[in-house]
Amino acid sequence: MGKVMANSVLAGVELGGTKCVCVLATADGEILAQERVETAAPRVTLPQIKAILRNWFDARRDIAALGIASFGPVEVDQASSNWGHIGQTPKAGWSGIDIAQALREGFDVPFALDTDVNGAALAEMRWGAAAGLDDFAYVTVGTGVGVGLVVGGQPICGFGHAELGHMRIPRVQGDSWPGSCPYHGDCVEGLAAGPAIVKRSGMRAGLIAQNDPIWHLVGHAIAQMLHNLVLTATPRRILLGGGVITAQPQLFPIIRRELETSLNGYVSSPELDKSEDYVAPPGLGALAGPLGPVALAAAILDRTALHAEANA
Amino acid sequence: MGKVMANSVLAGVELGGTKCVCVLATADGEILAQERVETAAPRVTLPQIKAILRNWFDARRDIAALGIASFGPVEVDQASSNWGHIGQTPKAGWSGIDIAQALREGFDVPFALDTDVNGAALAEMRWGAAAGLDDFAYVTVGTGVGVGLVVGGQPICGFGHAELGHMRIPRVQGDSWPGSCPYHGDCVEGLAAGPAIVKRSGMRAGLIAQNDPIWHLVGHAIAQMLHNLVLTATPRRILLGGGVITAQPQLFPIIRRELETSLNGYVSSPELDKSEDYVAPPGLGALAGPLGPVALAAAILDRTALHAEANA
Repeated sequence: MGKVMANSVLAGVELGGTKCVCVLATADGEILAQERVETAAPRVTLPQIKAILRNWFDARRDIAALGIASFGPVEVDQASSNWGHIGQTPKAGWSGIDIAQALREGFDVPFALDTDVNGAALAEMRWGAAAGLDDFAYVTVGTGVGVGLVVGGQPICGFGHAELGHMRIPRVQGDSWPGSCPYHGDCVEGLAAGPAIVKRSGMRAGLIAQNDPIWHLVGHAIAQMLHNLVLTATPRRILLGGGVITAQPQLFPIIRRELETSLNGYVSSPELDKSEDYVAPPGLGALAGPLGPVALAAAILDRTALHAEANA
Repeated sequence: MGKVMANSVLAGVELGGTKCVCVLATADGEILAQERVETAAPRVTLPQIKAILRNWFDARRDIAALGIASFGPVEVDQASSNWGHIGQTPKAGWSGIDIAQALREGFDVPFALDTDVNGAALAEMRWGAAAGLDDFAYVTVGTGVGVGLVVGGQPICGFGHAELGHMRIPRVQGDSWPGSCPYHGDCVEGLAAGPAIVKRSGMRAGLIAQNDPIWHLVGHAIAQMLHNLVLTATPRRILLGGGVITAQPQLFPIIRRELETSLNGYVSSPELDKSEDYVAPPGLGALAGPLGPVALAAAILDRTALHAEANA
C-alpha cells in the first residue's frame, strides 16, 4: 500500500459496456488527463484507445505502469493460455478478444489487468473509503450487481474472477416474481439490479416512490448477499454504491436492518456493530471507475518494486 | 509449499467439541505419536493437553513449531486484543478462554492458531486431495457444516474466520420445513447437517433409505452453497467430506447435478467441466482433522523461514 513513488505517473483504461475511459494520473490518485471513447466493435475501439495511450507515452517518459479494468467476463487466470481475453459475451465482436495483447503491446512498463469492479475496489482501498483496510467488499448495484471482494489486500481470485452478483439467495416469503437474470432468474442481480427493478415495476426506478414496497424486496435481496459476504470473508467494511443505490438512499437503512435481522447476532465484531460505518457509501463517487485501472497499475508497480528489492 | 525442512518435527492439537487430539508428526505428514483427551471443562482439559505437549517437548529437541486447530468461534484476528480466545459458545466454561496463551506458554517455537476446518483444508493442501492447488474449498458436513476456503494458499480471513455453513440459500420449491439452526433456521447448516436431518426425519441418518427424498433436499442445500462458493472464490476444486457425506455417498451425484443446474453454464473452466474431479472426496479421510494443526504448524514454519531469508 502506498509504496509507489509519489512522483510516478500511471496510465489506466476502464473498459466499459458503453464507454471506455483512458486516464493518466499520479500515484496519489490525482487525474492529469482523461479521454473517453465509445465502446463499439473492438477493431474500432481498441485502436482508438491505443492511439490515446501512444500519445501519452510519447509525450512523457515518466509513465511507470499501465492498468486495464475491464467489463467481464475476462480471463484473469495467469495460468491460462487465454489470460487477458474477453470471455463469452453478448457484446458484438468482443467474445474471445485478447485485450491484454491489444493494449499492452509496445508499452514497456509493468501491466495489470482485472475486472472493473476489482479495479474500483482497489481504488477505494488506495484513495477512498477503504483506505487502511486490507479486507473489505465493494458492492455496486446498477445495470448489474458487481462485488469486488478484497482479502489480504488482493481481490479474491481462483480459476477466474468473482461473480458474486449471481449469488443464490432466499426470497422474501410470498414473493414469487421469477427475476430477470437470463441464467439464474432470481439471483441477486435478477432481483436487485436496475433492469430487474424496471422489469418488475414496469417503470424506471426513478419514477417509483421511495416508500414503494419494491424497495424492501430489493433491499432484502442485497442484504441476503451481504449476509453471505460477511460469513464468507468477514470484511471489515462493505462499501455500497452504483446507480441504483445512489438514486435510492432509502435503501441503506433497509439493507442495514435486514442484514442485522438476517445475521441474528451469530457473528459480532467492533466493525459490524457500527452498522452505519459498516455498510457505507464509497468514498470516490463517480471517480472509483476511472481510478480503478490506475489503482491496478499502482498495485503492479508496488509488487514489481517489492520483487526488485527482494532480488537486489 | 513444502518448504519446511523434511526432517522437522511438528506438534499439533486439534481442539474438538467432544475430544482433543494431540499429534506429533513429520513435515511429510507422517504421524509419530497421537494422544487423545476428552473435552471437559477447560481447567481440566487444557492442563491435560499441556502435559502431553510438555512431555514431547522435553523428550525431543527437534520440535520446530506448534499448531492449534480449534472449534469455533475463536478469535483469529491478529489485530484484536482477544486473539486466541474462544468466543461465545454453548460449551460450558469455554467462552472467553485464552487457548493460545494456555497452550503456547513455555514452548519457544513458532505458533499458529486457526479453526479446525481451516487446519483440515491446509492439511489437504499439503498432503491430500488439494496438493498443488492454491485455491480450493474444503467442505465438511457432519454435526455442523464447515468450510475451509483457501485463496492464494491462505484460508480466507477478515475480522474473523469464515462461517460459510451459515450461508443463506434458496429452498427447494414447496419445502417449508423451518430448519434447525437456532440462529438462522434454514441456513445450509440448518438444512443439511446431521442434527437437521435427524430433526426433519425423526430418525438417525443411517436409518434413512438411500433413495429417500430427503437426500434431494439435503443435496440441494449443499449445492446452493457450492454455487455461491464457485461465484465467490472460483475454487479449482471442492473437497466434500464429513460424517453425513461419508455415510451417504449417493449425495455426490445429487450435489454435482444440482450445482450444474444452478450455475446453468454461467461460468465455465476446465476444472469445473470435470464435475467428478471438481466436487470430490478429501484425500486424507479421518486424518484430515488431526493433521490440521500439524499443517498450521508447517505453514507458520514456512513463513518464519521465508521472513528469515528475506532479512538475511
